[in-house]
Amino acid sequence: MMQNQTFRFDKMTMGVCYYPEHWPKSLWREDLRRMKDAGISVIRIGEFSWSILEPRKGEFHFEFFDGFLDLCQEENIKVIFGTPTATPPAWLTETYPEVLNALKDGTLLRHGARRHYNYNSGIYRKLSARMVEELAAHYGRHPAIIGWQIDNELNCETDEFYSDADHEAFREFVRNRYQTLDALNEAWGTVFWSETYTAWSQVFCPRPVLNGGYNPHLLLDYSRFISESCVNFAALQAGILRRYRKPGDFITTNGMFGNLDNHRLQQEALDIYTYDSYPDFAFELDKKQNTSPDVKDRKWSRNLTEVRSICPHFGIMEQQSGGGGWVNRMEMPSPRPGQLTLWAMQSVAHGADFVSFFRWRTCTFGTEIYWHGILDYDNRDNRKLKEVKAFGKRLHSLDPVCGSDHVAAFALIKDYDNEWDARLDTVHRRFGKYSEAELFAASQLSHTPYDIVYLRDDTLPAELAKYPVAFYLHPVLMNEKREEVLRAYVEEGGTLVLGCRSGLKDMRGQCVMKPQPGLLQQLTGTDVKEFSAIGPDEEGDPDAPVWNDALTALPGTMVLRRYAAGYYPGQPCLTEKRNGKGRVLHLGSAFSQNMVRYLFEYTGILNLFAPYADAPEGIELVMRDKNGRRFIFALNYLPTEQDMVLKVPARDMFKGEKTEGTFTLPPYGTAVFEPEQE
Amino acid sequence: MMQNQTFRFDKMTMGVCYYPEHWPKSLWREDLRRMKDAGISVIRIGEFSWSILEPRKGEFHFEFFDGFLDLCQEENIKVIFGTPTATPPAWLTETYPEVLNALKDGTLLRHGARRHYNYNSGIYRKLSARMVEELAAHYGRHPAIIGWQIDNELNCETDEFYSDADHEAFREFVRNRYQTLDALNEAWGTVFWSETYTAWSQVFCPRPVLNGGYNPHLLLDYSRFISESCVNFAALQAGILRRYRKPGDFITTNGMFGNLDNHRLQQEALDIYTYDSYPDFAFELDKKQNTSPDVKDRKWSRNLTEVRSICPHFGIMEQQSGGGGWVNRMEMPSPRPGQLTLWAMQSVAHGADFVSFFRWRTCTFGTEIYWHGILDYDNRDNRKLKEVKAFGKRLHSLDPVCGSDHVAAFALIKDYDNEWDARLDTVHRRFGKYSEAELFAASQLSHTPYDIVYLRDDTLPAELAKYPVAFYLHPVLMNEKREEVLRAYVEEGGTLVLGCRSGLKDMRGQCVMKPQPGLLQQLTGTDVKEFSAIGPDEEGDPDAPVWNDALTALPGTMVLRRYAAGYYPGQPCLTEKRNGKGRVLHLGSAFSQNMVRYLFEYTGILNLFAPYADAPEGIELVMRDKNGRRFIFALNYLPTEQDMVLKVPARDMFKGEKTEGTFTLPPYGTAVFEPEQE
Amino acid sequence: MMQNQTFRFDKMTMGVCYYPEHWPKSLWREDLRRMKDAGISVIRIGEFSWSILEPRKGEFHFEFFDGFLDLCQEENIKVIFGTPTATPPAWLTETYPEVLNALKDGTLLRHGARRHYNYNSGIYRKLSARMVEELAAHYGRHPAIIGWQIDNELNCETDEFYSDADHEAFREFVRNRYQTLDALNEAWGTVFWSETYTAWSQVFCPRPVLNGGYNPHLLLDYSRFISESCVNFAALQAGILRRYRKPGDFITTNGMFGNLDNHRLQQEALDIYTYDSYPDFAFELDKKQNTSPDVKDRKWSRNLTEVRSICPHFGIMEQQSGGGGWVNRMEMPSPRPGQLTLWAMQSVAHGADFVSFFRWRTCTFGTEIYWHGILDYDNRDNRKLKEVKAFGKRLHSLDPVCGSDHVAAFALIKDYDNEWDARLDTVHRRFGKYSEAELFAASQLSHTPYDIVYLRDDTLPAELAKYPVAFYLHPVLMNEKREEVLRAYVEEGGTLVLGCRSGLKDMRGQCVMKPQPGLLQQLTGTDVKEFSAIGPDEEGDPDAPVWNDALTALPGTMVLRRYAAGYYPGQPCLTEKRNGKGRVLHLGSAFSQNMVRYLFEYTGILNLFAPYADAPEGIELVMRDKNGRRFIFALNYLPTEQDMVLKVPARDMFKGEKTEGTFTLPPYGTAVFEPEQE
Repeated sequence: MMQNQTFRFDKMTMGVCYYPEHWPKSLWREDLRRMKDAGISVIRIGEFSWSILEPRKGEFHFEFFDGFLDLCQEENIKVIFGTPTATPPAWLTETYPEVLNALKDGTLLRHGARRHYNYNSGIYRKLSARMVEELAAHYGRHPAIIGWQIDNELNCETDEFYSDADHEAFREFVRNRYQTLDALNEAWGTVFWSETYTAWSQVFCPRPVLNGGYNPHLLLDYSRFISESCVNFAALQAGILRRYRKPGDFITTNGMFGNLDNHRLQQEALDIYTYDSYPDFAFELDKKQNTSPDVKDRKWSRNLTEVRSICPHFGIMEQQSGGGGWVNRMEMPSPRPGQLTLWAMQSVAHGADFVSFFRWRTCTFGTEIYWHGILDYDNRDNRKLKEVKAFGKRLHSLDPVCGSDHVAAFALIKDYDNEWDARLDTVHRRFGKYSEAELFAASQLSHTPYDIVYLRDDTLPAELAKYPVAFYLHPVLMNEKREEVLRAYVEEGGTLVLGCRSGLKDMRGQCVMKPQPGLLQQLTGTDVKEFSAIGPDEEGDPDAPVWNDALTALPGTMVLRRYAAGYYPGQPCLTEKRNGKGRVLHLGSAFSQNMVRYLFEYTGILNLFAPYADAPEGIELVMRDKNGRRFIFALNYLPTEQDMVLKVPARDMFKGEKTEGTFTLPPYGTAVFEPEQE
Repeated sequence: MMQNQTFRFDKMTMGVCYYPEHWPKSLWREDLRRMKDAGISVIRIGEFSWSILEPRKGEFHFEFFDGFLDLCQEENIKVIFGTPTATPPAWLTETYPEVLNALKDGTLLRHGARRHYNYNSGIYRKLSARMVEELAAHYGRHPAIIGWQIDNELNCETDEFYSDADHEAFREFVRNRYQTLDALNEAWGTVFWSETYTAWSQVFCPRPVLNGGYNPHLLLDYSRFISESCVNFAALQAGILRRYRKPGDFITTNGMFGNLDNHRLQQEALDIYTYDSYPDFAFELDKKQNTSPDVKDRKWSRNLTEVRSICPHFGIMEQQSGGGGWVNRMEMPSPRPGQLTLWAMQSVAHGADFVSFFRWRTCTFGTEIYWHGILDYDNRDNRKLKEVKAFGKRLHSLDPVCGSDHVAAFALIKDYDNEWDARLDTVHRRFGKYSEAELFAASQLSHTPYDIVYLRDDTLPAELAKYPVAFYLHPVLMNEKREEVLRAYVEEGGTLVLGCRSGLKDMRGQCVMKPQPGLLQQLTGTDVKEFSAIGPDEEGDPDAPVWNDALTALPGTMVLRRYAAGYYPGQPCLTEKRNGKGRVLHLGSAFSQNMVRYLFEYTGILNLFAPYADAPEGIELVMRDKNGRRFIFALNYLPTEQDMVLKVPARDMFKGEKTEGTFTLPPYGTAVFEPEQE
Repeated sequence: MMQNQTFRFDKMTMGVCYYPEHWPKSLWREDLRRMKDAGISVIRIGEFSWSILEPRKGEFHFEFFDGFLDLCQEENIKVIFGTPTATPPAWLTETYPEVLNALKDGTLLRHGARRHYNYNSGIYRKLSARMVEELAAHYGRHPAIIGWQIDNELNCETDEFYSDADHEAFREFVRNRYQTLDALNEAWGTVFWSETYTAWSQVFCPRPVLNGGYNPHLLLDYSRFISESCVNFAALQAGILRRYRKPGDFITTNGMFGNLDNHRLQQEALDIYTYDSYPDFAFELDKKQNTSPDVKDRKWSRNLTEVRSICPHFGIMEQQSGGGGWVNRMEMPSPRPGQLTLWAMQSVAHGADFVSFFRWRTCTFGTEIYWHGILDYDNRDNRKLKEVKAFGKRLHSLDPVCGSDHVAAFALIKDYDNEWDARLDTVHRRFGKYSEAELFAASQLSHTPYDIVYLRDDTLPAELAKYPVAFYLHPVLMNEKREEVLRAYVEEGGTLVLGCRSGLKDMRGQCVMKPQPGLLQQLTGTDVKEFSAIGPDEEGDPDAPVWNDALTALPGTMVLRRYAAGYYPGQPCLTEKRNGKGRVLHLGSAFSQNMVRYLFEYTGILNLFAPYADAPEGIELVMRDKNGRRFIFALNYLPTEQDMVLKVPARDMFKGEKTEGTFTLPPYGTAVFEPEQE
């Protein structure tokens, strides 16, 4: 069981990101006092400050941050210090261009932005380690420090690396993985298109090929390699930090990005995981975000659910306080009055015990002049500061909720191998993305919340046992160990729901020479003899979109639904097979919102909140539990008042008073109820 | 006259593509027996097997294919062996990176996909020749072998090459073509923009320039060069194969791709041409295919018509049997039950005497795991295998059709110079593509089939004489020799139909300083004094879209239609000029479907099948003739039953029985009728 | 005050672009005579002729142009000679590849198109200077010559340069600008993302970075650098030409392109500015042009207004005569009969005293075979030649208009710093482009013409004083000097109109730590405490789109309008503040067409022509003044007849007769009226 949170906040804590280097020193003390006045007790600093700490190679300067940290200590503001490795200085990259990341064609990504380095350069690892060690040695015992952030948003900007160092490291990675070229050739199926390798020196990270016709098994291992490279880089820093930090200080990093096993990152390098939550992306002007029209900014609840699976009592290192955007892209409107509070409460509802806003004051220069902070350029008290202050008071009223557990109606099972396989595999990606978005929308709108469980070879059935129902949407890649966990879950009474293309491949991404759903066939009691992609214009069964496996029900398997139209009208589309005390539902298609609702109803999990409250679709309900005390968060995402009905007497935690019956949430309003114990 | 088919199948033959290297040897014998049982007698193998044949430079290994070929011989399965030059091994490209193809900016296209080599590298030509010679020497006399495939899909993936070897070879090519720099400068009009070359070393294939502002005459020669490079590479292999093959064994290659004079390829290197037919591209999910909404998969009849012009009694080396797609692109649905058969019969109708399905069983690894074969990953007998078997029986009933000729209502004249000119020239391309698509759609839906005749400087009027009508849609490039052929055709009674911008340029792609239509003016009896592109939003004459030449009818020329709207309302749009026994129709615009139908009617060629049958638009009718015996194919492309009426008694060749009157084709159904001789 | 026109045409002059090198010498004399017959007295030649003038390094040949110029002299055609530096010969770029321009990633842009050189290469400057000197020395005294054109369309094709020479020159440029690295680091805010430079060698033009996350202050200086590089290159040539030209001969260059301070170019290098006017881009088939649907080809009046701000009595070096387009892009329809004349008259109306058509005859080879001239490939007299001849006669009747001044209802203030800031800054660009397009459309359709005044640090209030109203749409970048000019303008009685985000930044592109609108707050009497981008789908106030600043009216400021919807309903949206004798109107949003019309009305400037004429929206009216004589141009852009009413008696200058009351303009028709003096 993967669960390695070694630090927890013991009370609800509010913070802010601050950049002393962006402002005249004359502003520092006033800034800290205004923070305190607003209820902020922690700041995150330093993560882009390498040029200040080591302005020339080997010359370390701490006088700048010494002054600032001493002031923090005086003003009783606690500090999380970020290691500055996300932005190597110009002297470093000009002296050692081999530390730069590169595009697939070898073009180096240069100084002048951020995250332009690679994880595998020996010299970068050496210089980073030295920088971190100097920093940790200098500040490890500083009383203002309470934690360390490693780098900044690992794998943000890009999660692909093609420098010479990466090519070499990838070669080593697969050599360790396969030991022999024969084993590698077998695993990658290189006999196809005469790709057989006869020397290790022939092996590279993906390089330019015609029409992107990459070997998918190589690319799957490449994702594993990138993840390992990133985790190793973080672990290198964590190891150093651990040697110098004070007892009780934590190590974290922020954000959640691709090509990265965040669970392993947490396990190998972090005490607590922190996330950067920017729901305003849902309203970005050029609308590139892949948000369902139904859920908009509620999609960040999906991200927070993901974060919770990594670390149940996490923090938010960067919580959106103003409109976002670089100078050249990501134009976002300002959050409307109330949304700042709503989005911060969304984080708390889903498990954050620490909420640190990004950022104290909007920077007046650089690429992020439009990534707005609490204060505007003019530095005056404003409406946002008022919201933060009010939020801080509400947060304080939620101290009893700190450390509580989320209550879910079901589990969504995911795994990294399938996620990474779907990066290249457009077929896999198409139904995978579709189903997960629809499941989330159905869950949100029907008040049927879920937890995410990442399946690994060492996952224990106990991790699933507490959920009556588990959706594993499209486990295309499957192996015996994981099938065993699923089987144990079902036999002990669980209901497992699987979708199309389950069991198609093994963990190398090779298709198995078995009747589909492959290793899962005994569980599903089905056989797939015909299958097809469903084009967007195809007039198929609207409840069974994107892909259709025509199921055959084996003896003992019940047919619940048949395709109404499309390629295989009349063929089974949804089946049920009893296994031990549980059952397996097998859907031949991707999951439409309609179908998910039907499955919620059929499995009896629809609306976790039915005993407590009736709420319209526009309100998200989230339940937390702490030793039997239950807390219900109600979040109104709409610009209009929404009424909900409390069916049981409850305490309104913000107001500290009892309430029951109709409760009105103002536009973007939030509330937390503690139902009275019977 | 260009017609060099030196091999023909003497009876209808069914084959399949097979990759023994993809499967355990233990499956081989069973696979061959199941093929035979399905009616398959020929397999194509080996075209991506260089790594097996020469795993290290100069070490040739034949034991793998020896074992397999002996088994084929035992099981009486005949073999077409593909030379493996489409995929050089890793050792080769890593040792000699100069053999790789490159992007225009010089970026090398690397190992890991396919077709990453260039035709002009000396070392690649040498290593390829040696590989082919070793292979041919070893297997040339093997009794299982019946033919050889050169490489695989020449010019697929890309038909542009920019390696250093290509730059050098292009320089040589134009030096041979022009002898002097003065001649080259004159032909390319290099006095424009001061492009004049003063040394051969200044001449390159296209390299990056601003806004793609290439010299169009250079680019036209570049297409000619690419075509010649490809033909030479094939001819190099063909020369070697001819020295070793058994009498009666044929040489072919598969596919039909751009920047390639396929007719010259056939003449210089092949005994028979084979095509790869994948009509499922019409249903690709991302719809990039440029298919008219009316014709969808029927568009492959257009491709097959093109193939027939290269080689009238051709083969299909790869006939679609399942859904196609690489792991990263080209998502296609599965063919619906019946479509496999329909599409195979489409090939036969248009001239294929050999149909080899792609492929026996879907590969479980590599980039093409979704390019489905007859059998699925699970290796069980399935519906597709049943279809193949049934198709095989029907094919057997068509043995009398083998070697018969297609019967056309008219000819479509095309030529490579115009095709290649339109690659860079967006104006030319816009009306060219439009008109050809509309002509095809009108031809299909009105049962007015055509043949394609490629016009060359040595084309004989006799090649056209058998067609009462010939469309030469937009012969923008024209010379005296070709004008003479056209004139002779018309004077002997032919009706020639020409569209806008005819005769604008000479064969260098330079515009002629003559009244338009230039060299064709005497034929058309028209003069073009005003002309304009018609924007997509322009409210022009709907029957005269894309481009409008305002025609002036010279004395003796009759005006058939005038522009109803647009730039030149009231000006002549369609004219007729008598010449000798024939006539020339000149249309000032691109060809709309409506206009084409009008022209069919006006020239009396509408519906070739009127004496025999009435069929709805959803059925394609194709007629074949062998020594006076006529065979009519009826192909229903719709998912619903379609009725047609046979006006004369005929033999249903599949059933071997007589039929007349209403005949019902099931969804995707096909039939072949032999009308009774009166 | 920036105003440096040192040459003016003394009478209306008609010219044409001619390329003697494109045609057989046998055509030359006939061409010149036909030109004269059409009323053409001037030709522009030579601007792409380096290969002819210096076919090998250091070998200069003038015999070709000697012959041609002597013929011109004989035929009494005057000549503007273009220096040939836009297209270096192949021998030059192959010998010295360092003279080539490069893409950001370093890819060199090669020979074979045009404008492939960079301004900063030492060797290119040397060879260019030598070429120009040889040319000027040879032809400086030639009697046929009347002027010189420097290069061709500077900064066309691309206005970005990334060669090694540019990197070096940029480093020098910023070193001169900032003197110390500390000053540079401060100006660029490099403390953000640890971008601090510690050696000059670390400074580069933009190079590839992740997600285009460039430092905006560096990019602003990069635009300044490109502009300076271009001006210096032109000044280098101008200096040489001045030494050799005859008294009275002028120096110019053609076109108006980006990243270039055209006013400084005029001041430092030119005697008169000439523009290339191609209104047919409005009808380009792929519609990439950013033209408002309302104004189409009238948008070129906006460009001509811009040109007039650079040089009030300018010329048109290339006036569209036929459809345009390269062989690979920019497909334009042919101008409809009448449009050639309309567009030429549009140029004259806006200030051109010299109109030279592009080009005499369409070239039959090269990239621009579809960039049509007056004559077509067939070289016959045609309708376009007739139009030119008729236009020439009309032009002659306008001699009294030559040198007259444009009469505007108001001024539009612009500046280069804001223009260049908006290149990277997508937020700035979005409302900037929107507002300017809407202002122009409102101005056109309501007959409320404007002049453009470029604000610089040395602009004098006098330059603005003559305009009762000045719109400065979005002066995001502002400094004290400019604020003073604006203040003086207002205090002396002017009405200044400002839009959203005014005063946000300083001249480095850094945001100011002041209440918005920053330095302008005293002028506007407003305070901005809330602001937001407005997404395209947002249901906001339709009259206040794109961006909303919620204004607070400070004491003494009047609220004229409030937001009707959107982020800040009820908040002030438009305010008025009296200052001295004038006032400032502050709009919180971008400018919608509706709002602009309202402001025209409110400020009393709506319809400059009310005393003279009533004209429908489809007609553009332009007024010129010469010593009190007024001339009114009426231009009908529609394909249908349009009626206007003259309210005063006037002389129809084309017909030379008196007219009053209803006047009918034919489709695309034009007229010029001189109202009778009362």
